[in-house]
Amino acid sequence: MHDGDYEGENVEPNDRKLLCEEWASYGVFYKYQPIDLVRKYFGEKIGLYFAWLGVYTQMLIPASIVGIIVFLYGCATVDENIPSMEMCDQRNNITMCPLCDKTCSYWKMSSACATARASHLFDNPATVFFSVFMALWAATFMEHWKRKQMRLNYRWDLTGFEEEEDHPRAEYEAKVLEKSLRKEHKHKETDKEKLTWKDRFPAYLTNFVGIIFMVGLTFAIVFGVIIYRISTAAALAISSTPSGRSSVRVTVTATAVIINLVVIIILDEVYGCIARWLTQIEVPKTDKNFEERLIFKAFLLKFVNAYTPIFYVAFFKGRPFQGDYVYIFHSFRMEECAPGGCLMELCIQLSIIMLGKQLIQNNLFEIGIPKMKKFIRYLKLKRQRSLDHEEHMKKKQRYEVDYNLEPFAGLTPEYMEMIIQFGFVTLFVASFPLAPLFALLNNIIEIRLDAKKFVTELRRPVAVRAKDIGKVILLLILRSLFTLVAQAFVISFTSDFIPRLVYLYMYSENGTMHGFVNHTLSSFNVSDFQAGTAPNDPLDLGYEVQICRYKDYREPPWSENKYDISKDFWAVLAARLAFVIVFQNLVMFMSEFVDWIIPDIPKDISQQIHKEKVLMVEVFMREEQGKLQMLETWKDKDKRKGENCNNHSPRLSRSRSGSLSSCHSYPLDV
Amino acid sequence: MHDGDYEGENVEPNDRKLLCEEWASYGVFYKYQPIDLVRKYFGEKIGLYFAWLGVYTQMLIPASIVGIIVFLYGCATVDENIPSMEMCDQRNNITMCPLCDKTCSYWKMSSACATARASHLFDNPATVFFSVFMALWAATFMEHWKRKQMRLNYRWDLTGFEEEEDHPRAEYEAKVLEKSLRKEHKHKETDKEKLTWKDRFPAYLTNFVGIIFMVGLTFAIVFGVIIYRISTAAALAISSTPSGRSSVRVTVTATAVIINLVVIIILDEVYGCIARWLTQIEVPKTDKNFEERLIFKAFLLKFVNAYTPIFYVAFFKGRPFQGDYVYIFHSFRMEECAPGGCLMELCIQLSIIMLGKQLIQNNLFEIGIPKMKKFIRYLKLKRQRSLDHEEHMKKKQRYEVDYNLEPFAGLTPEYMEMIIQFGFVTLFVASFPLAPLFALLNNIIEIRLDAKKFVTELRRPVAVRAKDIGKVILLLILRSLFTLVAQAFVISFTSDFIPRLVYLYMYSENGTMHGFVNHTLSSFNVSDFQAGTAPNDPLDLGYEVQICRYKDYREPPWSENKYDISKDFWAVLAARLAFVIVFQNLVMFMSEFVDWIIPDIPKDISQQIHKEKVLMVEVFMREEQGKLQMLETWKDKDKRKGENCNNHSPRLSRSRSGSLSSCHSYPLDV
Repeated sequence: MHDGDYEGENVEPNDRKLLCEEWASYGVFYKYQPIDLVRKYFGEKIGLYFAWLGVYTQMLIPASIVGIIVFLYGCATVDENIPSMEMCDQRNNITMCPLCDKTCSYWKMSSACATARASHLFDNPATVFFSVFMALWAATFMEHWKRKQMRLNYRWDLTGFEEEEDHPRAEYEAKVLEKSLRKEHKHKETDKEKLTWKDRFPAYLTNFVGIIFMVGLTFAIVFGVIIYRISTAAALAISSTPSGRSSVRVTVTATAVIINLVVIIILDEVYGCIARWLTQIEVPKTDKNFEERLIFKAFLLKFVNAYTPIFYVAFFKGRPFQGDYVYIFHSFRMEECAPGGCLMELCIQLSIIMLGKQLIQNNLFEIGIPKMKKFIRYLKLKRQRSLDHEEHMKKKQRYEVDYNLEPFAGLTPEYMEMIIQFGFVTLFVASFPLAPLFALLNNIIEIRLDAKKFVTELRRPVAVRAKDIGKVILLLILRSLFTLVAQAFVISFTSDFIPRLVYLYMYSENGTMHGFVNHTLSSFNVSDFQAGTAPNDPLDLGYEVQICRYKDYREPPWSENKYDISKDFWAVLAARLAFVIVFQNLVMFMSEFVDWIIPDIPKDISQQIHKEKVLMVEVFMREEQGKLQMLETWKDKDKRKGENCNNHSPRLSRSRSGSLSSCHSYPLDV
Repeated sequence: MHDGDYEGENVEPNDRKLLCEEWASYGVFYKYQPIDLVRKYFGEKIGLYFAWLGVYTQMLIPASIVGIIVFLYGCATVDENIPSMEMCDQRNNITMCPLCDKTCSYWKMSSACATARASHLFDNPATVFFSVFMALWAATFMEHWKRKQMRLNYRWDLTGFEEEEDHPRAEYEAKVLEKSLRKEHKHKETDKEKLTWKDRFPAYLTNFVGIIFMVGLTFAIVFGVIIYRISTAAALAISSTPSGRSSVRVTVTATAVIINLVVIIILDEVYGCIARWLTQIEVPKTDKNFEERLIFKAFLLKFVNAYTPIFYVAFFKGRPFQGDYVYIFHSFRMEECAPGGCLMELCIQLSIIMLGKQLIQNNLFEIGIPKMKKFIRYLKLKRQRSLDHEEHMKKKQRYEVDYNLEPFAGLTPEYMEMIIQFGFVTLFVASFPLAPLFALLNNIIEIRLDAKKFVTELRRPVAVRAKDIGKVILLLILRSLFTLVAQAFVISFTSDFIPRLVYLYMYSENGTMHGFVNHTLSSFNVSDFQAGTAPNDPLDLGYEVQICRYKDYREPPWSENKYDISKDFWAVLAARLAFVIVFQNLVMFMSEFVDWIIPDIPKDISQQIHKEKVLMVEVFMREEQGKLQMLETWKDKDKRKGENCNNHSPRLSRSRSGSLSSCHSYPLDV
């Protein structure tokens, strides 16, 4: 039950009111959280969550600053970037091949100028540096949190605390009872029943099938959006006026991303409920078990849900890996990335999904829905109450009002939201250096929002002790391994960083980037179009096209094996892969190093603990001795009856027992 | 001091004799070691070393068995291996380019038949499987050891034990005293002096320079051996009869490896001494510090020493990375690997170094030298004694005999030997599947040898408590990360596994390996020899050669860019790099999984510890209550004088104190 009112002038001060003023309000966003008070009011577990959130938010500040600098560096150098200058140069006049079959026509390279310039903002050498920085940042964050946790453990006196065996959940007990009742008819055994693997098999099977099905559903939806994008692009290309055609890509990308976003947000909620249901039918033994199983399931589902479209753009879009264009259903040609590189599209996708998800989930779900539920419950109660008028007149007690609040549903969704966000910040940071900034802004609000929710919108949860944030840290570590690989792949495969380096060192004649754009484009003879794929309107640009260019490393039409993968392709691929190996191992080594040089336990805390241990042993010894002395004293007294107390004091003062064994107080006599 | 005699019939039984019979003898090699007795006699630290050695040896058994199976698989399939069959086929009649300038002549591919067949023994798909297996084996070994350590900690009652601050070493105290004396002349300060970074700077500098110098020395020696190999090969090629020419490679390789081996063994001892000296001049504060610093230095030096020639063969030999042949000093052409692949040579190198190092170091240094030293000391003492005859007649006391023994020099060399061996077992296991077997055989002897040394050849060391094997485990973990990368590179770059796969899936016409040998060879037109590099004896094979072949992926002489790197080269390189990424991440993930599913603390031990904790709390409570009761009893007695003891018993039995508070014994009154 909550402490009391938190609003109104004439309310006596209580913890809830204090929390509401000093913590759960946006006005104090720049202050440290009153973690100790939170812990006192809500228990260790929730205290740790807010402490973790605080450390995370705090650590986001340097990351945001570096991210902004990297972004500004991109802005400042955009006019010095030779590849984008070459692309924008009207004199180069490169004719590009159509981006889709039949309906699309040839187009000029310079029309993609804006995209090319914009993509430089996110695809420049500084992002590689930023990527390394963020990997090390993640390692530092982990270490920092471990230290903070140790410090809190010490302050909250949890160092010696070990989690005890939880009580079985009621559902589990019921199931066991049911089983033993069923069995009793056959065997009449009396020993305590347990749920075996066999009993749980149907639930496990349901879980497995359910998860596979939902992952499949996510893939299907993403695939559907791709089909939508391809077909809409083709349709729009026919209908629109020539001037509007350039905006086709923007329109299609924007609508597709919004569809993705809406689907992600809806499925996020649905998957949350399904994960909970799947965990319930598994009937885990204890609450802790329940939470662990739930968090893994929720993580898997929400991760797949949030990242599938982003992974598609980062690694699969516009990569006709082998041979000809890839066709889906034999009629839709796979889309290609804009000439500026796929990184730009990845960036758009990422920023919209990240921002949209945060804004909508924060505002709508975290504030709106609890408010709405509260209102509905209030209405219901009112209808009931309208029957008996008498009670209606009386001012309601605080606990009655609080009963209207939403019950507390565990910390899993809160953690999950942060883990997914952590993924946005670290996983694809190479393509979007402003991600930490947005995460920071979100978290500053998020802390106060969650605080408000806990103080005013939810019933007060039962305080639970916890020493650490549990499996969450495991997920983060697991993720950090995965992150490294993903980052390495984003830099080497999605961005143009490696092709540029390869060009600079292997092909460039004068050691500059001049000619890079030309180098990345292959030639196509328009007479080689397969039947039915040539553009309907070949004279769209005003002149007849003989050779058009496309972005790939392939043999030219005049070579022996025309349109075969060229040597350059393999050279660039080898360079990309070599970069992945070097990046991964280097950053892994550096992270290990960070892990190694920062001790897990802060030095002052470990000294303090050591000192306390020594002190405790001393006190214990003293006490023991004191007791011994006392016993002897009593025995002595027994023998030498009538002597008074003071006579013993010289003897006692010789012992180490000090004040504990002073004669007129028996410290153990309480 | 040792317990007493260990030889002779009429010696009363003591621990030393028991250890000597039941542990330090080759006859009991199949038995488990009496670790508890070892711990009792030598202390925890040495006990842990032998326990670790035991676990390692035990874990080597499955690895050896799988290694033997893999080797047998290679033997069984050698006749079905198409590439080696093609190489041996006289009909193919491929003329190869000379392996060195001028003196070497053209040679027939089929003359390398034996090497090609032999190389299949170590270069087949099973070795890839074995490599994965050994990586997981290493992870399992770590986990197994952690569990064993926990179990021993529990059994030896070390669970609560925390290492205390060691006493400063005498050398450190002396140095501090010296410093404070020096300072006293100037400042007359009295507070305790400490060695600062400034005082230690010369020592650190010496260390740094010394280590750099010695690493450089190792590289120089390896380089010298390479020069020796190239020049000898050329010299032998001139002088020998044509029939003996085929044995040139074997002769050169064998002598070079033996030189390497001798150098490694000598430098190993020298580096051991230098590392100790370098650590001594650093003046570390405590013994533990000293050992840590020593072990890192010794590891670095010995690692570089033992592995440099192997790394050279594995990754650098015969790889003219770019452009033309690499020349050293403009006159020595870099050597190439045999046509069967470099893996064969790596295998020879590895097996000779590993076996030779183990045999010589074990026999000569670990048995021979202590025996010799003992003998010398004995002679010295005898000469002294011959002066006073009286004492000479008396039978010597045991401790006098034992004084002749070598003093104990720490466990670092023992651990170091094992860590280097662990490297042979895991690092290049892909090229030599019998390595675990040899390691196993060595260790079975090593355990008893070390045991004998500790019992009979060394003075009894001071027993030291230790909870774990210290920094050794850190080195092993560090190594295991490095191992993965090295293994991945050995498989993908040293062995022909990847080129074969690439050929099978990209070039092979009928899906078999037929034509693979031809595919890996490039053509060279003999008219393109640079001046002074053409063979002196071009008609050596009996016919005129127009086109000779060499092992590389390059454009043929009739192409546009002749002798340029071909597309195949880049494709194979990309495949090799992709394999490294997949292998590394897959095995890393699997190792993490092994780490995760095997709990660090065995379940029975953790339950036991938990139970004991509960029990201890209970006993403590009981005792406290007992004491309280006793105090009350005395007070009661004080009040109701004259009442006898039995009256109290009903009241006492109500308490939980049980036997502790029985009336006629005061348990705290000892």
